[in-house]
Amino acid sequence: MSLIVQKFGGTSVGTVERIEAVAEKIATFRDQGHDIVVVVSAMSGETNRLIGLASEIQEHPTAREMDVLVSTGEQVTTALLSMALNKRGYAAKSYNGRQVRILTDATHTKARIKKIDDENIHADLKAGSVVVVAGFQGVDEKGNITTLGRGGSDTTAVALAAALKADECQIYTDVDGVYTTDPRVVDSARRLDKITFEEMLEMASLGSKVLQIRAVEFAGKYKVPLRVLSSFKEGPGTLITLEEGSQMESPVVAGIAFQRDEAKLSILGVPDSPGVASKVLGAISSANIEIDVIVQNVAADKTNDLTFTVHKNDLAKAAAILNDVAKELGAREVITDDKICKVSIVGVGMRSHAGIASKMFACLAELSINIQLITTSEIKISVVIDEKYMELAVRGLHSAFELDGEPKVA
Amino acid sequence: MSLIVQKFGGTSVGTVERIEAVAEKIATFRDQGHDIVVVVSAMSGETNRLIGLASEIQEHPTAREMDVLVSTGEQVTTALLSMALNKRGYAAKSYNGRQVRILTDATHTKARIKKIDDENIHADLKAGSVVVVAGFQGVDEKGNITTLGRGGSDTTAVALAAALKADECQIYTDVDGVYTTDPRVVDSARRLDKITFEEMLEMASLGSKVLQIRAVEFAGKYKVPLRVLSSFKEGPGTLITLEEGSQMESPVVAGIAFQRDEAKLSILGVPDSPGVASKVLGAISSANIEIDVIVQNVAADKTNDLTFTVHKNDLAKAAAILNDVAKELGAREVITDDKICKVSIVGVGMRSHAGIASKMFACLAELSINIQLITTSEIKISVVIDEKYMELAVRGLHSAFELDGEPKVA
Repeated sequence: MSLIVQKFGGTSVGTVERIEAVAEKIATFRDQGHDIVVVVSAMSGETNRLIGLASEIQEHPTAREMDVLVSTGEQVTTALLSMALNKRGYAAKSYNGRQVRILTDATHTKARIKKIDDENIHADLKAGSVVVVAGFQGVDEKGNITTLGRGGSDTTAVALAAALKADECQIYTDVDGVYTTDPRVVDSARRLDKITFEEMLEMASLGSKVLQIRAVEFAGKYKVPLRVLSSFKEGPGTLITLEEGSQMESPVVAGIAFQRDEAKLSILGVPDSPGVASKVLGAISSANIEIDVIVQNVAADKTNDLTFTVHKNDLAKAAAILNDVAKELGAREVITDDKICKVSIVGVGMRSHAGIASKMFACLAELSINIQLITTSEIKISVVIDEKYMELAVRGLHSAFELDGEPKVA
Repeated sequence: MSLIVQKFGGTSVGTVERIEAVAEKIATFRDQGHDIVVVVSAMSGETNRLIGLASEIQEHPTAREMDVLVSTGEQVTTALLSMALNKRGYAAKSYNGRQVRILTDATHTKARIKKIDDENIHADLKAGSVVVVAGFQGVDEKGNITTLGRGGSDTTAVALAAALKADECQIYTDVDGVYTTDPRVVDSARRLDKITFEEMLEMASLGSKVLQIRAVEFAGKYKVPLRVLSSFKEGPGTLITLEEGSQMESPVVAGIAFQRDEAKLSILGVPDSPGVASKVLGAISSANIEIDVIVQNVAADKTNDLTFTVHKNDLAKAAAILNDVAKELGAREVITDDKICKVSIVGVGMRSHAGIASKMFACLAELSINIQLITTSEIKISVVIDEKYMELAVRGLHSAFELDGEPKVA
């Protein structure tokens, strides 16, 4: 008998029928003797409906009132799911953030969890109830309602699992696990049985948007075993763990990630002096533009070339700033390119395996794909290439690193 | 500068436009220097939408989960109205039942208020905020969400006004006050400037459904001056007070109330012995059927005739029970009639004025209306008559007691 925290997102509870299906799934686990704490999001569409009402009234409502408003969405789902469980003869009790209590700081709309009280939940579990908790929300010290920001329900689930010392935290979503790469790009992409937290972080931040990064970080920090599964079909999903592949022959590369929506900016021929990078990137980030890849090279003529990538939507704004900085620094030239993409191989195994990088570059060379930028971290290698070669590169690398499974039948 | 509690019902906050209009109204009072606590209902339709979702899942959900579900409706309105006030430059802060805190007993879906904490609200008022409170809801000792039952938002408003020692509790609704009778029946019905709590109770329970009885009782008990006004048009409304007409020539009869949806049952020729009434009425009320008028007469032959009225919907059920009881008691006959109505004159003045009753009966006789039943209390006299004479009786009495105002222009 285990204690399992299960999280169901907005799509999984989007209609009364789907809430019933979720209740069936929970019932199966209860029948196996497990204690279950469920975390739910608002029914899909509900949060947008509420935000729509607010925006009809005020362009920028106070964050406090936005939290009061949108937190009702999850509360509705907790009540409906509890009813669906009760109907099936399973004791169930809804909790909002205050009732748990999930204490957060006072940063409305993106609060951080400070402490979770678990006495009430433990008492109800002991009494045989399924506990149904509203995700995404908490209360601050003064009892104000707070919300945790985008993906907050995942964070609630992981934080609850950590506080309750749950045996597993299961995140139900509309995909059946984490794949070696996007199955829409590579037919033979394979579901991973296991992946480490670090790999998952790199996969997520690089575009395989299965889980919120914050929830994965949280789970890693508190050593909560996290499993991603499908709400809609059976299967073991993907377990995200601390252990680096318990199997001896765990593959060195876990998956291929990619990102299409970046643009590249270069400032060329900057006189080489200390503080150039900070001046350039400081100006960009002051404008609240997020920077992804940064590469700097000292050129032969003792000037600097600095290249970085931003989201395509921020390109025009970033280019304007960069032109100003270039004048100030006496740089030769600014060039931009929004026809790029980033492709990465991710795997904890590569730490201890030489030759992974050269294998990657060889594969791309064989496909006649020119590499514009390279960056590396301990567990990933990313290249920026012309966006028209993206699928070709991803498929080639997927195959080169022996990730191919059985092609799916369409 | 006064402290005013203002309550806006579901119709008054039914759309974003109406919420904006409510904010305008509140702003006017703030500009006059008053401190304002606002109590709001759910946007009209929202509570039914939520109940609809629940009923798709379970026929009889637990009362606890129903409260969790429907209490979100009021919370949404508090946030939206606070935004509408903020937009206009007025500080405003939303409160749900727990945040106030409105402590109730644990009787979900019809909880009773036990205590209201007022420190937080006082602090916010002092800081210059409009305080916007979710009506209809509270929390029990354990922090479970409770609701107060039908008309609960009126109760919240009155209870808050009592706790805060407000100068006035204003109930905004879709009528502009309490009338001498239903203006849809009598063209010349007149809005009353003042009415006593007792008169209001009789008017309300007799069918002029402007305010919930429970809120009026509460206001009377705690001496909260209560004013009924229209959300949609300007005007002083009707003030409900303790004083019996401060004007010398206050009319003896305040208004004419009526009820169309009752049915009459009689059990005739019951052998006269103690406990007959209790046996008959006990059986009816055991079946959860509410009884209104009760009249008993000893007939000439030493048998009893007992007549009472119930809601038309309960007639068949009540008749079946009464037939069983009649057999048991050896009664001669049971007769029922659902083509009846009840017409009442209400006024605290009649306590001390003889001749009111005879004036009423004379008026009806002049109109050739046969009186089937008569009951009286200290401040009202009710008759049961054939329902087809209802309008005739109400108009005749309204005129006989000099209640007519200027006929309204249609």
